[in-house]
Amino acid sequence: MENLTTLTGKYGEEGDRLIFKILNNGLHEKKEGDKAKLNNEWNNILSKPYSTPVVTERALRYDLTIPFARYVVMHQNELAFPFRRYQMQPVWRADRPQKGRYREFWQCDADVVGSTSLINEAELLNIYQGAFKQLQIPVSIKINSRKLLAALAELCGMPEKMMDITIAMDKLDKIGWIGVAKELQERGISEDGIWQIEKVINVTGNNNEKLAAFADIMQHSASGMEGINELSKTLAYHASLNAGDDNAASNIQVDISLARGLNYYTGVIVEVVCAHPDVKMGSIGGGGRYDDLTGLFGLKGLSGVGVSFGIDRIYDVMDELKVFPAQLATGTKAMLVNFGGDNETYALAVLQQLRTAGIAAELYPDASKFDKQMKYANKRGVAFVLLPGDEERQKNMVSLKNFTTGEQKMLTIADCIAAIQE
Amino acid sequence: MENLTTLTGKYGEEGDRLIFKILNNGLHEKKEGDKAKLNNEWNNILSKPYSTPVVTERALRYDLTIPFARYVVMHQNELAFPFRRYQMQPVWRADRPQKGRYREFWQCDADVVGSTSLINEAELLNIYQGAFKQLQIPVSIKINSRKLLAALAELCGMPEKMMDITIAMDKLDKIGWIGVAKELQERGISEDGIWQIEKVINVTGNNNEKLAAFADIMQHSASGMEGINELSKTLAYHASLNAGDDNAASNIQVDISLARGLNYYTGVIVEVVCAHPDVKMGSIGGGGRYDDLTGLFGLKGLSGVGVSFGIDRIYDVMDELKVFPAQLATGTKAMLVNFGGDNETYALAVLQQLRTAGIAAELYPDASKFDKQMKYANKRGVAFVLLPGDEERQKNMVSLKNFTTGEQKMLTIADCIAAIQE
Repeated sequence: MENLTTLTGKYGEEGDRLIFKILNNGLHEKKEGDKAKLNNEWNNILSKPYSTPVVTERALRYDLTIPFARYVVMHQNELAFPFRRYQMQPVWRADRPQKGRYREFWQCDADVVGSTSLINEAELLNIYQGAFKQLQIPVSIKINSRKLLAALAELCGMPEKMMDITIAMDKLDKIGWIGVAKELQERGISEDGIWQIEKVINVTGNNNEKLAAFADIMQHSASGMEGINELSKTLAYHASLNAGDDNAASNIQVDISLARGLNYYTGVIVEVVCAHPDVKMGSIGGGGRYDDLTGLFGLKGLSGVGVSFGIDRIYDVMDELKVFPAQLATGTKAMLVNFGGDNETYALAVLQQLRTAGIAAELYPDASKFDKQMKYANKRGVAFVLLPGDEERQKNMVSLKNFTTGEQKMLTIADCIAAIQE
Repeated sequence: MENLTTLTGKYGEEGDRLIFKILNNGLHEKKEGDKAKLNNEWNNILSKPYSTPVVTERALRYDLTIPFARYVVMHQNELAFPFRRYQMQPVWRADRPQKGRYREFWQCDADVVGSTSLINEAELLNIYQGAFKQLQIPVSIKINSRKLLAALAELCGMPEKMMDITIAMDKLDKIGWIGVAKELQERGISEDGIWQIEKVINVTGNNNEKLAAFADIMQHSASGMEGINELSKTLAYHASLNAGDDNAASNIQVDISLARGLNYYTGVIVEVVCAHPDVKMGSIGGGGRYDDLTGLFGLKGLSGVGVSFGIDRIYDVMDELKVFPAQLATGTKAMLVNFGGDNETYALAVLQQLRTAGIAAELYPDASKFDKQMKYANKRGVAFVLLPGDEERQKNMVSLKNFTTGEQKMLTIADCIAAIQE
């Protein structure tokens, strides 16, 4: 939850519309409530002096970056800069829910604020690569610079049209070059400008070859050369950080059509998509540098760079790729059948020994019918069922049933624990 | 976020008032906005057909139990019963914030639904004990039964006054017996009734002695004998679960004045407070059995029992007791000083080797003045500083400075890693 004023005006006009606002106290609407009563309450609220918002003062987080900027400004005297932090929290958007788009979802952000070094960009690329490798998601990491997009507008002789050019180019994946060219024309870009853009988009090759070609085309644009230099340095730092691994950058592609929305980024920008051909999902991560993020809250000149993971989309992709480890699906490895009475008491003592040995075990809590208990064990997907009955109790042993093989043996508790652990 | 109708009416009248409600789309209030425009929007909203709430349809979770009940009912055909789950999430209450009372705070709940066995109660007591032991918080776990409170009202000859008696007794800690007796009188309890309650409250001894004394006093109340029997069985199960440890129940106290608010509990109830004499904090955990929780959502006869941890209060207590492990305070164990140029490139390669060896390390991202970098290392509380300068780079070594002892040595990378790990 944030003060509404912290969030409004930070995410563009559409963003403002998608912020969930929390009702102040004072309106008590019930489904059955009558409109006259509600209207009365409304007039009561509206009759107050209008110094603070009367209907809503608070709102739900729209992302983690703006609340982070607010936090940094509030705690600027306690923090050690450059300040690095990660944060995992839910955020909310008042959007129409659909696949990959949720009203309530989790983000995981990593940011560094208070350093302009491109080592940070390289480190964040490494974090993306390391995390997605561990999650077993093949990814393509696109990288670009806002400065190249500005240079493109200069090349067209229309620096004021950067946004128009960016919006059109962002659709390259969806509508192809013919479609983009048409939209550029509609947005008032000259024919020569469109030709310049086509030239840039047609550049192929590996990252270094692309950057060299851009440098050739943009050699007269200070902004362009700066962007190219920053991307080169970022990639060089990334290579140093992964010295000895020649393939370290194989899933990182310079992509001049990458725009990352119309927000606060000013330098290097980055976006992650799943590279598996069967997975149709938008970006599962994105980020970039914002030269003056905290300036919005009165602390000028503090540069930040960060990346965000879209946890819910990542979950969906992992689900689709079936890369969740099988053992995550069940918490319990062994279930003790409950035969009631003295056998129940005995079972509790056995349960304690299993847990002390580090085995995730549970006792069926009721002395229900055997079939019902076995059905439950099966539905829970436990690997072992333990049968502590009369004979077992008297011998201080337990029958162990392997649920996969169906094999059943009476064992001492120690042997039973060893068998499960093996 | 939940549908507002899922939450209203579940937490009593005060609860309804403390639920944060989310504004539907349609009202766009700005601090600078004029009242006429706002009023226009309001009239527009109010002119719609009143089939669904026009102002607010959604609300923020007030606790985790009601959303859990909603979840169980929605997924009743997929779940294996008895169903156990834990859940950690933020909840919100529109209360005036103060120490130990937050507008947004985290709960961690563990529940079992679909089993009436008191083994569940015993297991949940074990979870409380195990968790607080690991967190190094000395606790007192109070346990009672709603059925004893009902029996107390019967004893007074006023079964309909259970709530009044409960509310008054709940204040025993704060206002003492004289205060409670006065309130009972004001609430219309007869003198004989007050005397009966005093007799029960004055019962002392260990848990078994207390329960035996209650059984003597309540022998003619079916509800009372049932409650006593349930508490005895819960404690017996707990003892079996901890067979061999005679002190296992030493921090569990039967406390007949425990009431746990006026909500949905029907059987055993439990509450945890920090037992350290210096810590002034309300309950840091609580729970109990609710015989028909999912009945609210149309699924009758499913019994549940659960406990909740108040994460933020637990955090506050741990902070006060200074029991957070020291190594939590810093993420980084070793910092490399950045000397720029070739030394920076060399530092990146060293950084990679440290991380591969499992050492949390970072390179200061800018080649700033040495003093500034050391000040940062100090503020971050790192244990080691590594100095990869010209000489070190040429020799493929690194100078390691122990920040605690001040000692500094030039070492090979392997020796440096070994020294840090040691």
